[in-house]
Amino acid sequence: MKLYYAKDSCALAPHIALEEANAHYSAIAVDLAAGQQRSSDYLKINSKGRVPSLITDQGVLTETPAILNYIARLHPAATLIPIGDPYSLALADSFNSYLCSTVHVAHAHGARGERWVNDESTFAAMKAKVPETMTASFELIQSELFRGPWVLGSQYSVCDAYLFTICRWLAWDNVNLSDFPRIATHFETMSARPAVQRVMLLHA
Amino acid sequence: MKLYYAKDSCALAPHIALEEANAHYSAIAVDLAAGQQRSSDYLKINSKGRVPSLITDQGVLTETPAILNYIARLHPAATLIPIGDPYSLALADSFNSYLCSTVHVAHAHGARGERWVNDESTFAAMKAKVPETMTASFELIQSELFRGPWVLGSQYSVCDAYLFTICRWLAWDNVNLSDFPRIATHFETMSARPAVQRVMLLHA
Repeated sequence: MKLYYAKDSCALAPHIALEEANAHYSAIAVDLAAGQQRSSDYLKINSKGRVPSLITDQGVLTETPAILNYIARLHPAATLIPIGDPYSLALADSFNSYLCSTVHVAHAHGARGERWVNDESTFAAMKAKVPETMTASFELIQSELFRGPWVLGSQYSVCDAYLFTICRWLAWDNVNLSDFPRIATHFETMSARPAVQRVMLLHA
Repeated sequence: MKLYYAKDSCALAPHIALEEANAHYSAIAVDLAAGQQRSSDYLKINSKGRVPSLITDQGVLTETPAILNYIARLHPAATLIPIGDPYSLALADSFNSYLCSTVHVAHAHGARGERWVNDESTFAAMKAKVPETMTASFELIQSELFRGPWVLGSQYSVCDAYLFTICRWLAWDNVNLSDFPRIATHFETMSARPAVQRVMLLHA
C-alpha cells in the first residue's frame, strides 16, 4: 500500500494506524503549501485534490474514516477497531464521523474559507469563530465521547490516532489543549507510543 | 430501536435503511422549525442537538454514517453493506464519509451559517456559493463515485438511501438534479422502492 500524506493534515491518523498495524506500506509526502495536491499527477490519483489517499491493489481509497477502518480490517491482529461488536464498532464510526464532519470542518474554517465562500472579506468572520467551535467540540469529546484511557475505553483504536491528529491543530485554532485535561493526558500517552514517534519523524 | 428523525433532514437515510431491513423500530418526529432539537428533553437523548438519533438497547447512537452501518450489521440478511469484502466496505464508508463531511456541509452553508460565523452579514456570501459547491459535489459523484445502477454497482446499499436523501435537497440549493442524468435516474428508481415509499409518507 502507498499512503499519500501531508504534514499537519488529517493523513497523520491513517499514517499512525499503518504503523500500529505493522503494515507493509510506503508513505509519499504531498506538499500542500506548494499546491502539489492540485497538480495533474496528483489529481489522477485523487481528483478531490486532498490527502490522505491510500493506494491499494484494488484501487484508491479516500476519506480518513474509510481509510482508518480499511487499515484496521486488513490487520485484525492489531485490533484497531472492535470488529465483531456492532455497537462498539458503531461508536467508533460515530466518533470518527463526528471528527470528520464537525471538528475537522470547524477547524478548516480558519484557513480554508474559500471552500465555502468566494467573498474573501468574510474569511475573517469565519476564522473568528474557530476557537468557539473547536472549544465546543472538545468539551463534547471530553465530557461525553471520550471514555478513557482510550477513546473507546480500555481498547486502543484508530479513533485514538484520529483524535491525536486533531489535537495537534488546537494551537493554530487558539485553543489550549490543557483546558481539556483528560484529552491532554491522552495526547501525552499517544505521543509516547513507539508507532506515533516513528510517524512523527516524518510529520514534525 | 427508536429513530428520532426530522422531515427534510439526513435522518431520512437511516429511516429508509430501517425499512429496507424490515427492522423492528419506531420513528419519533423532532420538529426542527420549532427548535425541539434544542429542548432539554431532546438534549438528554442527543446533546449535539441534531437528528438522527438511534436509541438501541445498548445506548444512543448519533452520526448518520455510523447509524447506517449499525442498521446494516444488525440485519445482515438485507445485505445493506458489503460485509466480508474490506475494499467494497471501504468504498461504502468513503462514499458516506464524503456525503457527511463535504456534501452535507456544503448544503448546510445555505441555511445554517450560524454554525461557522457569528456575523450574520456573511450568511448571504455563504449561501451564494452553495449552488457551486453542490454542483461540484454532484459532478464528482456522477463521474467517479457512482458506479450504477446503485452507488456501489450491482448491490443496493445504505449509500443509496443516503444519496437519495441529499438529492432531495438540491432544489433548495438551486441545483437541478436533471443536470446529473445518472443520479436523476437513481433518484427515480429509489422513489419507486416500496421501503422508500413507506418512509416518505412520514417525510413528505
